Amino acid sequence: MFVVFASENCWLFNRISAILTDMEKKVIKKIQEAVGQANLLTDVEDRSCYSYDASSQNFMPDAVALPETKEQVAALLCLAEEYGFPVIPRGAGSGTTGGALPVQGGLVIGFSRMKRILEIDPDNMIAVVEPGVVTGELQAALKKYGLMYPPDPASLKFCSIGGNAGECAGGPSAVKYGVTRDYIIGLEVVLPGGKIMRTGVRTEKGVVGYDLTRLFIGSEGTLAVFTQLILRLLPLAETKVTFLLSFSSLAQATRLVAEILAAGLMPCTLEYMDKTAVQVVRDQITWQPPEKTAALLLVEFDGDQAEVAQQAQKFADFVWQKKNCTLRQAADEAEIKELWQARCSIAPACLHLRPHKIAEDVVVPRSSIPKLVQFTEQLAQELNLIILTFGHAGDGNIHVNIMVDKQNQEEYNNGCKAKEQLFERVLALGGTLSGEHGVGITKSSFLAQELDATALSVMKQLKKLFDPHNILNPGKIFPAH
Amino acid sequence: MFVVFASENCWLFNRISAILTDMEKKVIKKIQEAVGQANLLTDVEDRSCYSYDASSQNFMPDAVALPETKEQVAALLCLAEEYGFPVIPRGAGSGTTGGALPVQGGLVIGFSRMKRILEIDPDNMIAVVEPGVVTGELQAALKKYGLMYPPDPASLKFCSIGGNAGECAGGPSAVKYGVTRDYIIGLEVVLPGGKIMRTGVRTEKGVVGYDLTRLFIGSEGTLAVFTQLILRLLPLAETKVTFLLSFSSLAQATRLVAEILAAGLMPCTLEYMDKTAVQVVRDQITWQPPEKTAALLLVEFDGDQAEVAQQAQKFADFVWQKKNCTLRQAADEAEIKELWQARCSIAPACLHLRPHKIAEDVVVPRSSIPKLVQFTEQLAQELNLIILTFGHAGDGNIHVNIMVDKQNQEEYNNGCKAKEQLFERVLALGGTLSGEHGVGITKSSFLAQELDATALSVMKQLKKLFDPHNILNPGKIFPAH
Repeated sequence: MFVVFASENCWLFNRISAILTDMEKKVIKKIQEAVGQANLLTDVEDRSCYSYDASSQNFMPDAVALPETKEQVAALLCLAEEYGFPVIPRGAGSGTTGGALPVQGGLVIGFSRMKRILEIDPDNMIAVVEPGVVTGELQAALKKYGLMYPPDPASLKFCSIGGNAGECAGGPSAVKYGVTRDYIIGLEVVLPGGKIMRTGVRTEKGVVGYDLTRLFIGSEGTLAVFTQLILRLLPLAETKVTFLLSFSSLAQATRLVAEILAAGLMPCTLEYMDKTAVQVVRDQITWQPPEKTAALLLVEFDGDQAEVAQQAQKFADFVWQKKNCTLRQAADEAEIKELWQARCSIAPACLHLRPHKIAEDVVVPRSSIPKLVQFTEQLAQELNLIILTFGHAGDGNIHVNIMVDKQNQEEYNNGCKAKEQLFERVLALGGTLSGEHGVGITKSSFLAQELDATALSVMKQLKKLFDPHNILNPGKIFPAH
Repeated sequence: MFVVFASENCWLFNRISAILTDMEKKVIKKIQEAVGQANLLTDVEDRSCYSYDASSQNFMPDAVALPETKEQVAALLCLAEEYGFPVIPRGAGSGTTGGALPVQGGLVIGFSRMKRILEIDPDNMIAVVEPGVVTGELQAALKKYGLMYPPDPASLKFCSIGGNAGECAGGPSAVKYGVTRDYIIGLEVVLPGGKIMRTGVRTEKGVVGYDLTRLFIGSEGTLAVFTQLILRLLPLAETKVTFLLSFSSLAQATRLVAEILAAGLMPCTLEYMDKTAVQVVRDQITWQPPEKTAALLLVEFDGDQAEVAQQAQKFADFVWQKKNCTLRQAADEAEIKELWQARCSIAPACLHLRPHKIAEDVVVPRSSIPKLVQFTEQLAQELNLIILTFGHAGDGNIHVNIMVDKQNQEEYNNGCKAKEQLFERVLALGGTLSGEHGVGITKSSFLAQELDATALSVMKQLKKLFDPHNILNPGKIFPAH
């Protein structure tokens, strides 16, 4: 089992159901004692549910623990250090870069039994939660108190706060409200070896000692395991107005993004879809964008009634002066849903074009969006590929989906080539390879292209400081060589 | 010189003008070669300007370098490692916790010759600056582009961005806009030993690798020396409205703070002054608060004309319903200045009461402000002291000034006792010992009271990882024993 093979980087499918050595039996028994028999999964059927995530890759864990307390998590990390097996913390498996996959086998720790909202403090606009809390469920619970936790990843109906924190997830609202990092002010974590530690504060400000909280946010489960998170909240926005803008010119749409923000307008959504994305969703939606649509922008403003009315008017006037698009305003909740349909249908619909996608969440300075999109169009033509671009234009975070059929070797190779050229171009434009999905395993071989050699070396030393035996989520972020 | 004594924790006043050993002469010559003769200060008169900061403490540096380039900074850190002398990065010396003081002698690096605004990119709302840029001067430069960099420490007319980043400075606007950490997205730093490294991004989002940028922000110059900072900016708020609220009950004032925010009102200033602070400034201001004033709140809203008008109306209605204070709205710029006079006069005026102050910037959860203020009143009575409380009530960051005459030993001892009891109470209320000033030397002996022992040990290990020879700003943050 993992005791023997952990360092050999191999995938031990179904090994537990085969004959175990005495040593392996002993470790399994210890893990069972640590979390209780009911919280340990070793059957292949159970384990297989934890073998994949949204990256479409598959690695079987040797066992899965579902601890109920921080003490159980600590006991597991203590055992992992003693017996040298990998531990892979897992949120809800909605990550797209393989962050939660047991690429070297080992023990997956799931948090579906640590999903309590421990505290909602409306006076101080603070919540304390366990890592397994589903982001959307937290948002619903907060609504009753007139509060909101803004980060809204597309997977919010099933992703967890712990996973969001591990990857520093974003979402459409980031353009106005920022990302996960901006809302986590304190943590309780378990370190490799099993020590429990508290970081940060439960106040709006705090500068005592080094900022361990933000060092852990976005560290993709490689430095520490979260067992509690302290969140800062905002008053719930009273209402929202939704606009859809259709353009017959892609360049006009992408240019408008920077102009909207420069004009001091502060939308809480500023999403973009290119022509291919629009075509792909035509069959999935109950309304039809104008025939010659080259790009769509979905723009929303939130706040109290008066504020939203005023922003909406200002925005409509602003767009009107541009005279380069058609503007549609949603009249009610039903119409808002209808307009969002287009944006939300892209992910499932694009798989009608090709069975697989290479999906990247690159970021460029907003003013370079037109250049980036133009480049992907060129790439598609040169390499004979279908490439969609859409996403969070407001913060320059463009989702690029390169559609391929993996059975078609030439197409797949071209897809990989396109990804490489895309990354090169993004970096040349002053951008970054990931805005919200992290590095995981799918981007680790490109890390050195973005990071300065010294920074990469410092990060490796940090990993070694926290996790000297490379037990916590090994094989992630850093390239193997 | 420092070569010999650096590790002995002694202060070498005036040592350079005395007889130097051959070794010391050699080091001085090397430093001179590194930065150029014109950029090295060794005369006692020059050095003494760098021996103090706003903490009222005094430690003489052995020499002061004023580098002009990152390469010169790198050369200095390389020499420091080779010859084992302390290096103390210094912004404008406006810090109140002694962060910029050469407590073990050594070489102070000042940044007054690295103060260029390298780039303002209005399309992407990004600026790239050198660390010596004065915060207020940057804000003025950005205004011309219709942009703003929100953090506004009280010292913004002379403090520098580099120092702000080192301490993670805040200011009145933090209640709406956040602190320095929220606006620095990338850095260029020199590490102990002299390696130059880039961190972060120049885009709105970015999650590639560990968040070194935010690890360095607030690290008080103990991990790396900043040579360039990439800042995210916001569109300049078009206008502002200023209110002054006078209360005859302290409890009513402090309670209103949490109520204002819970009501979804989002002021950009929510400052508070207690009765003693009001009394102290009466002679300094051109208007007079109502006679029985027990507390003042200064409240501002910013944004575009329509938004501000609407927020102001909503706020006035809200306050009117409370019926527990008198409300005054500034009619014009002159009146805004007049109202701010009160808040800005506290610091100089309070020294009329006693020649010295023990000034702390503690933070508590907003709902605990009444308890904290009540506690300081009790402390004042019990220990026969004058204690003022004022500051950033909106984020629970209360400045507590304990006034003492250091010549009066009993009073000074009582002041120190009050500080200890205050810190205990703040932590018991779920607060933190510093919201924006950092730990430096004045709070280091209290660090272990706030931080978990494991966190403290991890921070010490981080310091050792980055600075194994303890060359960079030694004696700061961590208690000596």
